[in-house]
Amino acid sequence: MAIAVDAMGGDSALNVQVDAAVRAVNDFGIEVILVGAEDQIRNKLQTHRYDSQKLRIVNSTEIVEMEESPAQALRQKKKSSIRVAVDLVASGDADAVVSAGNTGASMATAKFVLKSVKGIERPAIASLMPSVHRNHPFVLLDIGANTDCKPLYLFQFALMGDAYARTSLHLDNPRVALLNNGEEEGKGYYELKETYDLLKQSTLNFVGNIEGKAMFKDRVDVVVCDGFIGNIALKVAEGTFDFVRSILREEVESAWLSKLGYLAMKGPFRALRKRADYSEVGGAPLLGVNGVVIICHGSSKAHTLRNAIKHAQECAEQKLNAKIAGEVSENLEVIQQAKDLNGMEKLS
Amino acid sequence: MAIAVDAMGGDSALNVQVDAAVRAVNDFGIEVILVGAEDQIRNKLQTHRYDSQKLRIVNSTEIVEMEESPAQALRQKKKSSIRVAVDLVASGDADAVVSAGNTGASMATAKFVLKSVKGIERPAIASLMPSVHRNHPFVLLDIGANTDCKPLYLFQFALMGDAYARTSLHLDNPRVALLNNGEEEGKGYYELKETYDLLKQSTLNFVGNIEGKAMFKDRVDVVVCDGFIGNIALKVAEGTFDFVRSILREEVESAWLSKLGYLAMKGPFRALRKRADYSEVGGAPLLGVNGVVIICHGSSKAHTLRNAIKHAQECAEQKLNAKIAGEVSENLEVIQQAKDLNGMEKLS
Repeated sequence: MAIAVDAMGGDSALNVQVDAAVRAVNDFGIEVILVGAEDQIRNKLQTHRYDSQKLRIVNSTEIVEMEESPAQALRQKKKSSIRVAVDLVASGDADAVVSAGNTGASMATAKFVLKSVKGIERPAIASLMPSVHRNHPFVLLDIGANTDCKPLYLFQFALMGDAYARTSLHLDNPRVALLNNGEEEGKGYYELKETYDLLKQSTLNFVGNIEGKAMFKDRVDVVVCDGFIGNIALKVAEGTFDFVRSILREEVESAWLSKLGYLAMKGPFRALRKRADYSEVGGAPLLGVNGVVIICHGSSKAHTLRNAIKHAQECAEQKLNAKIAGEVSENLEVIQQAKDLNGMEKLS
Repeated sequence: MAIAVDAMGGDSALNVQVDAAVRAVNDFGIEVILVGAEDQIRNKLQTHRYDSQKLRIVNSTEIVEMEESPAQALRQKKKSSIRVAVDLVASGDADAVVSAGNTGASMATAKFVLKSVKGIERPAIASLMPSVHRNHPFVLLDIGANTDCKPLYLFQFALMGDAYARTSLHLDNPRVALLNNGEEEGKGYYELKETYDLLKQSTLNFVGNIEGKAMFKDRVDVVVCDGFIGNIALKVAEGTFDFVRSILREEVESAWLSKLGYLAMKGPFRALRKRADYSEVGGAPLLGVNGVVIICHGSSKAHTLRNAIKHAQECAEQKLNAKIAGEVSENLEVIQQAKDLNGMEKLS
């Protein structure tokens, strides 16, 4: 089993990627393929010690810039590092791909080259979110791949989120909920009400609607929403953490007693940061394509990318996509019902 | 000028309301009308000292329960405390109403009795949100009145939010932004793109799209979104605060040094709570109805309700609705354009 790493994507490409790949090899014994400008990678690798049996390089000659149009990159840069890395998964030479490059281009390339898992219309990006339960985050999806969602897509996100929670959180029967503006049945707009009905009929452990406030309280394992809402939820949570950090920093400076207190509380603050921080997991999977694709922030550090490589290997080893296919086949009737709903929408 | 207070609404109705009314009279010299079961209110008032010239009671004989259907309450309970309180505003006997009762019923009653400000299609609820800038929160709207929004409505929310920021934050030229999943023009779904175009043509100080993470960083004064997104954003922010508090509490308990540190940091934590807490303002206005309507959490304490009464008086004194009407009349052409868009939607 080998994990392809896009060595040219991200804000500080090459440095961080090479470092992360070496660490993944040394710390976990994972087999890594670095995809990028071979001579540059080889040059960077000279300062590292590692098992050369486990770290290969595959050359690529183009780079997708962070601001480039994904559609254009997909069309014109067929020798880019992300394209070559995804091609390795398609050909079976790698089992997963990790990229901190242009997110849109990574998604578009993965969807185009790998195609969707049978029975999945739209791949979605999932993120692990912190919960008050120690070592037990929850899965939020979609966080950005799809802005406008039919009940069919939302229902399939739930199936994929369930499979991902079984894989990454090792849960036997994840509690699946729909992000809504109230807990009662019948809340939200048309698509949510229909999705609620579909979920009730599914094989999933559907626990109903959940509000944005309650989802952090260890009441659910998978929270389903469209990619626009997911983006807002994720960013608001990040913004609130930043707000807390910035206010405390400012207020602590105002008195020497507070400064001492802050020093004495370093432990709890570190623990909070660790429990709230996604970088411990490293990266968010694009669920629903034929292959494991882990998308990382452009600003990811080597530690985060190393963890993402490990995460990619776990998802591949535990046959995440087979689990998704299993969920689909257990819920074919409900999926058909959701498709009929789409048809009716078109007719009306 | 008098503020009508719904004495029977909220989780601990009567106690908290009577207490808050007395405090508003004593602390700020505001004229308050308590609306509810007269004998019960009179009974509660016996233990308080206040200027009886400034505190009147208007009797009502029905109560809208917290879980009751708003439509049913509106139809069947014409002598409820919220209805009588809103009627006082309609008749000119009061200038504003404050309620911690059934939010849906308060909104439905206010919309039905007071009607919309001319040029406003859909009233919206605004909330003040914390920002890193000391004493300078921002306005988020809609946070729940409308789940599905046409560009016309979102544009009108921007006009109302601007008027509210001028009123409550005393700003001369509020920075207005659209909550979106990216900052570039063209982000988001159809309604957001169209609203972006409308805002660009308006008299508002439109600064473009803002992401959920950046809005806390004092880059904007008014953030516009539909009521579903606003609900999610507000609740996720609350949930994240709760998460931080709960983790820190748990971690602090784990070592005596942390406990001491926590004691020494009481000041900063208190400051954080105060700066993050909406109860200092007290309540959220329903913008766009003919009259000032302040909606409070059912769980509001007397301190919060007292502040809401003061907030109501300020909004009435500073002629919030005249400001909204002014914004409308300055942007009639853009509103017409938004209406044409609606027409086109219907045709297509």
